[in-house]
Order: sequence, then structure tokens, then C-alpha cells
Amino acid sequence: MDTPKRLLRTLTGEAVWPPPVWLMRQAGRYLPEYRAVRSKVKDFISLCTTPELATEVTLQPIRRYRLDAAILFSDILVIPWALGQRLAFREGEGPVLPPLRDAAGVAALDPSRLMDQVAPILETVRKVRQRLQAEGLGDTALIGFAGAPFTVACYMVEGGGSRDFAATRGMAFSDPALFTRLLDILADATVSYLSAQIEAGAEAVMLFDSWAGLLSPGQFRAHVVRTTRYIVGELGRRYPAVPVIGFPRLAGLLIGEYVRATGVHAVGLDTGMDLVLAKSQMRTRVAYQGNLDPFALLAGGAAMREESTSILESMRGWPFVFNLGHGIVPQTPPAHVAELVELVRAA
Amino acid sequence: MDTPKRLLRTLTGEAVWPPPVWLMRQAGRYLPEYRAVRSKVKDFISLCTTPELATEVTLQPIRRYRLDAAILFSDILVIPWALGQRLAFREGEGPVLPPLRDAAGVAALDPSRLMDQVAPILETVRKVRQRLQAEGLGDTALIGFAGAPFTVACYMVEGGGSRDFAATRGMAFSDPALFTRLLDILADATVSYLSAQIEAGAEAVMLFDSWAGLLSPGQFRAHVVRTTRYIVGELGRRYPAVPVIGFPRLAGLLIGEYVRATGVHAVGLDTGMDLVLAKSQMRTRVAYQGNLDPFALLAGGAAMREESTSILESMRGWPFVFNLGHGIVPQTPPAHVAELVELVRAA
Repeated sequence: MDTPKRLLRTLTGEAVWPPPVWLMRQAGRYLPEYRAVRSKVKDFISLCTTPELATEVTLQPIRRYRLDAAILFSDILVIPWALGQRLAFREGEGPVLPPLRDAAGVAALDPSRLMDQVAPILETVRKVRQRLQAEGLGDTALIGFAGAPFTVACYMVEGGGSRDFAATRGMAFSDPALFTRLLDILADATVSYLSAQIEAGAEAVMLFDSWAGLLSPGQFRAHVVRTTRYIVGELGRRYPAVPVIGFPRLAGLLIGEYVRATGVHAVGLDTGMDLVLAKSQMRTRVAYQGNLDPFALLAGGAAMREESTSILESMRGWPFVFNLGHGIVPQTPPAHVAELVELVRAA
Repeated sequence: MDTPKRLLRTLTGEAVWPPPVWLMRQAGRYLPEYRAVRSKVKDFISLCTTPELATEVTLQPIRRYRLDAAILFSDILVIPWALGQRLAFREGEGPVLPPLRDAAGVAALDPSRLMDQVAPILETVRKVRQRLQAEGLGDTALIGFAGAPFTVACYMVEGGGSRDFAATRGMAFSDPALFTRLLDILADATVSYLSAQIEAGAEAVMLFDSWAGLLSPGQFRAHVVRTTRYIVGELGRRYPAVPVIGFPRLAGLLIGEYVRATGVHAVGLDTGMDLVLAKSQMRTRVAYQGNLDPFALLAGGAAMREESTSILESMRGWPFVFNLGHGIVPQTPPAHVAELVELVRAA
């Protein structure tokens, strides 16, 4: 029997050292080979739903850097798109959707479409697993992912990105029943979608909750913790051996409660989290993943080395996955990533 | 001798109950009487620098709600403007400045202009104190304020608002000496400006650090804690009886270290902070100020009552100033504010 991959050993609680390393948005615009593939398709969704191309861009950073994890190339807004909400990505503007603000909008979502719509993405998952093996990259684990219900709802209600997601947070307070119904539809869709990714070959899954930290503690419990616990529980019954990484960005003081109450196996920590404090305050020993400032990687040099070394020193002896605290910045020189990976491997 | 005002008793450590209450951006667009004054001047800076008008809008919410604190009507970008960086406020877009990205830009800042430029704002401080007394609002304390150096630098370097302040965080890593020089100029200007506000009649001062939570822990210590400790120390030597409220938004786990290391007398907590956890983890008993979700106030009704009651229950017996966790939303019905103030007064 093969030794389990370094990433999976870590996510299940082993303090593997040097730690496994991958980077959020590692397949992306900072790589010239990504831009070459991207230029072949008109829109971003076509790239996500064309298995040959999505497989190619998923593998690109693994070929360059031999990272410990590949992450499915996709987007957190696949679920609303698959449920029938129109989605476009405008250059420099990010995602644009028709804002969903009322009961009719929620009722129009069609979960029966979901699995047909995501079929090409599941095909990508299968292809990536095959190609990792075929290309001698069998030590790299494949992570599947979805946006967490609250964060996905933010974009759906708002109709795109926002600084404060006013319409979403407004709906959460002014019509909690409707907002909860929306989140529950998303939570069920997320369970189905992640289950299918696992069936297709994803070896771990991650829930991105980028806007969790906008909420008051009461709303955080109602919308972030509740839905995440449900998803983790459902996946755990079906796939007890597959670890779930939660990433409640900007959760701050609530990070410990999030971990304990949701049952995630590992937790992504954002750039602002002090790892020593996190260890002393979280009270539960789960694997941590994070949290180099993407702007330290962009700057490179001494700044990158000092910030990375401080992270590594804090985490030695703990199950830890080295990563960024937020997605890689498109202007990042690929050579900085190479130097970072080397630094982590020498820890 | 008069009994000290409820706000000042609280900020110096007394658990006054029911707690004093005021609201961030309480003088603003949600009030029709504010919009009437605003329509008389062409631009926002003219409003801030015309003492009669700035005094009037500062007092409007006090007359309506008898709040425990008035806060000087002004803007956190007064300091860069007074140092000579051009500043405009574009409708719906927020502040716009010529981005400051290099040593020449930092060298062009002229601290010798500062006190002349802010003279009309100091006149507003004097007028507000006089008018509070004259109008029988003598129980209301006057809070002066400034943006904290890191947050002010964010707008100066970026040239306006931003979702991630990429240029600023980039400069902090790629040219730490230049970034530190900029922060030090701002810290000295802040000490002078707040000292002058205190001389003119401000009874407490607040430092708004809206973007503190974007930083890695190392950068938070270097740019937020270091500059705040300096300002608090300098003000404390000159005006030991004047409390300083720090507001490092999104500081998360680092909130306790911020309080202990800077010496602030009170700390503003953002919407996401769990107050019970804050009390157990911060280890230092300073006054707390916060943290109702502005969207709960916008929604009103049961949502507002439940969130507010939970905050009040958490804080009974602790020196506490009831406030929002972020600025009031312009669409907020003034009647919701009236109901909130009544609810706090009945605690």
C-alpha cells in the first residue's frame, strides 16, 4: 500500500515536516502559460467547463513547482450558475449576476439542473487525477472546492462583488426566513456538488467563506457555522476519510468556535491571523493552513523570507499546510513562487 | 464641581449603566437636516472647513437623540489634505487623491502647513463646545478624532478607497523605510492635530484605523501598534486626563495585544467581534465601544432589538459605550435610531 500523500497526512492530523505547500489561486494570471490558455476561450466560464483546458491550467503550477496539492480550477460561483442564475465575468470587474432580492428569485433556483450543469467540471476532476498519475506527479493530492453558502449568497443577492454586501446583510436581517431558505438550498447543492467531486477523485475539499468576517457574531453562527456544520456532517457520513478544510476569512475571535462547532478537519487562516495566538486560543488541534500575506510574495526578497520564516517557526510540530492568507496577486513574479516553495521545503 | 459626563466616566473605567450611547457617522446623510446643510455647499471639504456649518451638522443628532457624545464633523483625510496632498470627494465614489507612491511624494508633504490648514476645524471644536452648553446639552461630551496613520496612508498611497489597498501593502513590503517615513510624518501630524483639538475643547479623542485588519501580524505590529503607541504616549504626556479610543477594525485575535501594547483607554470593536470572547481573551479591562451591526439598525424591528439586547447583556457591569460596529448606513430611517437610543437607555 502506498504511503498517503503529505497533504492528506497533514489534514488528518499529522505534523508532517517540512509542511506541504500549495497556494490559493496558484493556477492563474501570474503564470504566462495560464494566460496563453485563457486567451483561447472567450469567457471565464468556458474555461471552467472545458475539461481539457481546465485540466491543463490546474496542472500548470504543479508542473512548475511540484506543489503538494492541485486545486480544481473552477469558481465559487459555479453553484448559482448551475442552479440557473445568469453569470458573466466582466474584464477587470469580476462576476456579474442579476441580483436575487426576493422570494421569486429564490424560488426560480432549480436544483434539478445542478448535476447536469457541473458534469464537465467533474470530468475535469477525473482528468486531473489521471494526468497527475500519468505525469509522475502522484504525490500531489487533488483538492476539490466550493464557495460556502454565506459567501455564495453574498454574490447572488448583491449581483456581484461589493465592499460591504449591503443588500445581502440587509436581507439577512430584514427577511431572515427567505435568507435562510436561500442558504439551505445552497447548502444542499454544496453537499451534492462536493460529493460528486469526491466521487470523481477529489481527495480533500475546501469551503471558501471569504466574507464570513463581515457578520455579527449572531449572524456568523446562524449563517456561517450552521451551514458549514451541516455540509461537514453530511460529507462526513458519506466520506468519512475525506478531510474538509474550512476557510472563514476574517473570522477573528470566532475562529475557535467555528472549528469546534463545524467539525472541519482543517482550517484556513487569513493573512491577519497570528498563528501563535490561534494555537493558544483555538483549543482544538486541527490542521492549520495559511497564511503568508500575498503582498509579501509579490514583493519577494527579504520581506517574503522574513514573513515566511516567522510562519514556519510558529507552526513547527503542528499539522500545518503552508499557503497564502488570500489568493495570489496576478502581478506576482513566478520566480518568487519558486523561491518560496524552496524556502518551505528547506524548513 | 460638576459630575463628569457619562461618556467620560465610562472611558476612564467606570461601568456606568445604562451605558452611554453614540453612533459612528451619526452626523450624516440619513438625517434630512444634514442633507439640507450639505446641499448648501459645493463640496464635502467646504462643509468640514466652514465652522458654522460643521458645527450645525455636528449638533444635529444630539438635538434629535440627546446622545452622550457629539463627534466633530470632519474626515479622516483632513491630515493628508492639510499636508498638501490634493483631495476631492466625488459623488458616490468617495475620496480621490493623486496617488503617493515614491520618496518625492513623501518629501512633498509639508507639516509646516498643518496648523493653518486645520484652523477652521479647531474653530468648529470651540463652537460645538459653546453651543452644547448654550443649548442645554451640557451632558453631551465632545469627541475629537483623526484617522490612524496606517489607514490614512492607505488612502494616500492608493489615491482613494480600495478593496485590498494593493499599492499600499505592496509599498509596506517593498520599501519599508519609505513607508515607515510616511507613517512617522503622519503620526507626528496626528499628535499635533489631536493636541490642538484637545486644546480647543475635545474631551476625548478617537483614532480610526479602518484597515488595520488587512495586515499580517508582523505588519500590524510595525504599522498599527507602533504608531498608535507613539500617539497615545505623546498625548498622554500632554493631556493625561483625556482618554484615547482606538479602533483597529478587523484586528481579530490581535485586539488584546493592540490594547495592551498601545495604552489606549478604550477600544472600539467592529461588528464581527464577540464581546464575551473579547472580555475573556483581552485580559486588560479597558472600556469597550461598539458594536451593533449597522445593517441591524437599518433593518430595525426584531433584528435590531435582538442584536442590541445581546450586546447589552454581554456588557453589563463593564465600562461600555454603546455604538455601532461600523458607520451608520445612509438609508437608515431616523426613527430606527430613536428606537435604538430608547432601548439602550432602558437597559
